[in-house]
Amino acid sequence: MRMVDIIEKKREAIELTEKEIEFVIQGYTKGDIPDYQVSALLMAIYFNGMTNDEASHLTKAMLHSGDIIDLSQIKGVKVDKHSTGGVGDKTTLVLGPLVASMGCKLAKLSGRGLGHTGGTLDKLESIDGFNISLSEEDFIKQVNDINIAVAGQTKKLVPADKLLYALRDVTATVPSIPLIASSIMSKKLASGADVICLDVKIGDGAFMKTIEDARKLSEIMVSIGESLGKKVSAFITSMDQPLGYAVGNRLEVKEVIDTLEGHGPKDLEELCVEIAAYMAMYAGLVSDIEAGKNLAYDHLNNGLALKKFYEFIEAQGGHIDDLDHFIQVQEIYEFKADKAGYIKNIKALNIGLASMKIGGGRETKEDNIDPSVGIVLEKKIGDFVHKNDVLAKVYLNSKLGDNVLDDLKQAFIISEDKQEISPVIKEIIQ
Amino acid sequence: MRMVDIIEKKREAIELTEKEIEFVIQGYTKGDIPDYQVSALLMAIYFNGMTNDEASHLTKAMLHSGDIIDLSQIKGVKVDKHSTGGVGDKTTLVLGPLVASMGCKLAKLSGRGLGHTGGTLDKLESIDGFNISLSEEDFIKQVNDINIAVAGQTKKLVPADKLLYALRDVTATVPSIPLIASSIMSKKLASGADVICLDVKIGDGAFMKTIEDARKLSEIMVSIGESLGKKVSAFITSMDQPLGYAVGNRLEVKEVIDTLEGHGPKDLEELCVEIAAYMAMYAGLVSDIEAGKNLAYDHLNNGLALKKFYEFIEAQGGHIDDLDHFIQVQEIYEFKADKAGYIKNIKALNIGLASMKIGGGRETKEDNIDPSVGIVLEKKIGDFVHKNDVLAKVYLNSKLGDNVLDDLKQAFIISEDKQEISPVIKEIIQ
Repeated sequence: MRMVDIIEKKREAIELTEKEIEFVIQGYTKGDIPDYQVSALLMAIYFNGMTNDEASHLTKAMLHSGDIIDLSQIKGVKVDKHSTGGVGDKTTLVLGPLVASMGCKLAKLSGRGLGHTGGTLDKLESIDGFNISLSEEDFIKQVNDINIAVAGQTKKLVPADKLLYALRDVTATVPSIPLIASSIMSKKLASGADVICLDVKIGDGAFMKTIEDARKLSEIMVSIGESLGKKVSAFITSMDQPLGYAVGNRLEVKEVIDTLEGHGPKDLEELCVEIAAYMAMYAGLVSDIEAGKNLAYDHLNNGLALKKFYEFIEAQGGHIDDLDHFIQVQEIYEFKADKAGYIKNIKALNIGLASMKIGGGRETKEDNIDPSVGIVLEKKIGDFVHKNDVLAKVYLNSKLGDNVLDDLKQAFIISEDKQEISPVIKEIIQ
Repeated sequence: MRMVDIIEKKREAIELTEKEIEFVIQGYTKGDIPDYQVSALLMAIYFNGMTNDEASHLTKAMLHSGDIIDLSQIKGVKVDKHSTGGVGDKTTLVLGPLVASMGCKLAKLSGRGLGHTGGTLDKLESIDGFNISLSEEDFIKQVNDINIAVAGQTKKLVPADKLLYALRDVTATVPSIPLIASSIMSKKLASGADVICLDVKIGDGAFMKTIEDARKLSEIMVSIGESLGKKVSAFITSMDQPLGYAVGNRLEVKEVIDTLEGHGPKDLEELCVEIAAYMAMYAGLVSDIEAGKNLAYDHLNNGLALKKFYEFIEAQGGHIDDLDHFIQVQEIYEFKADKAGYIKNIKALNIGLASMKIGGGRETKEDNIDPSVGIVLEKKIGDFVHKNDVLAKVYLNSKLGDNVLDDLKQAFIISEDKQEISPVIKEIIQ
């Protein structure tokens, strides 16, 4: 088998076999196939795409390039969740304790945020003492004990994906839907769960810009999961505005607690309840989605989900001693409307960038995060505002720069027309 | 300027600027841009093509990556010729002395053969004593003295093309028409000629398989030449069968001499006369093509072209002492027709491969060539043959292998229907 023949085959849009795809991934991971051949293949894949079978073979080959976490010692159905990345996306922090309180086993590996999107690990680490470095033994024990554990990814998980992603990043081959699907799915499958719910965000501030692309990505990922014996559902959700009101690590943790107390933002609650219902159904805890949703709402209202949240935080060494003084900033700047009208759009990209620029996120991997800073929206799409109404509060520990103000101005689109409010979940593909 | 942005631009089919293309070629030649980014760009070019302007910028950037031969000390109009490579293609050996005898200055750098196609240098070196390594000074002096010199390419000519070609070869990005055009034209332009005639072969045994591709390649090359102030014509010619009858180095030299004596194969003569006429016209030696053709036929018939051939051979140290014993083989095998009918096709690819396998060509760059072996066709397309008529004579210094016989069998397509004979020159683009 020669790599050049495989590149030519893909260039001519002929389906690659499982053996050929294994040859590429094994050869590349071992260093036998050079970067320059792989990048040519990636560009050919960008243009000619991949069939669902090819994407499954690729995912499987990547999955076997490194360690696979063995969750067999965890009793019960293991659920996992992945988001393609959004702004104000604190779903895992609500959903995790919620489904754990309902009886699902959530053994989740998470990542950090970069650029305008946040990361679950950063939100958790904004809680004093929270430890994301668990041994595999402790990780499994904690899930067996309290149904939930969230840890950082180990370096040995899917090394082929790390290599490929680094190469795609410098060769303009990132936005290929089958490559994105295989990258996400290989990592999720290596994490060992039986039931996987994928949150595929669309819109301005998201990786997928259109419903068509999100649908394609979702379908490939569901198909890959199925071919490997997993139950996968994809939720296509809106990033036309940040999820909930809060953007910034501790501000989001605060909103998570509000939501777990049953009075969180409606969009965040709706999304978490829906995904929780699917997880509970596939875990065999409820007979259908409706029953799952009812159970989820019960647990948000009777305090069980909130109790599980604190149990989870404590199990990993975290503590919130005084919620009233959890957020410590020098100034809260009020960003006001320059005209009256209905909020048409709150561009998640600009809100995310503004939060990053004031220290709430990372521009490069080396940046430090200020856990308290961030932005809290006062209005959401559809709301009517008068001139000078506060649109957002900016929690600051530094002087507000003009570049941040520019982002805020660009973020809020105010229209004279009444706006229809579209649901946060656009489609569910399974 | 970042290479990844340039790749993305080309991936999105946006035209690259002259500055961007220079950045790529200069950076790659210096080693600042890695192979893996260049191969991704090449694959994007394979899919999205290049505009004529982009191809010109690429050619110019490659041209300036190394030495450019200064022919300014040669008096008169310098002509040059390039073939995309064929089987039995001894055009340069006829055309060179012919146009030199007519008054053109041919200062030509040539290459060796590989695979099923032959190379001018190999044909010349089959002549005892012929020296292809000339200093630039001797090369220019010889052209000034006798109007013709043919030498091997120096290593410093268009280093960017050498790098790019090696990378294309292993990344399945060879068959991209603008890349082929830029590769050919950068080398031709670096060789310093004013008038360039390109022989673009089409058919089975040629690089271009269809007239459409040949036309595209020709148009881009003519456009590149024009943008750099050169007069370029492209002759799209048939490779439905080998050119002339002889394939193999000394066998071809013998046929060259026949042609220069005015009794060569019609297709070879026609092609050489037509190109000679264009060269003479653009060199200002004749007023139009018709006059050029008449002059060329005169020089084939009055011995002036033949005289120039021997003058050229001698100037570079070569000598043919006894033409009757020039070809020395142990056996001449007669390959016969297995049925009666009209010759429909003589696949150049198979004839070229057969000749290579008996030692007349190189399978790898390291192989040695036997100058005497080869194949001489006894029939051409359109000829009627009876069963057991000799189709070709195989000049051998080894046992004839079954694999060679297979190639010969595959080469000759015999039909019951009378065949129309199409002209060797299909189109001229200028």
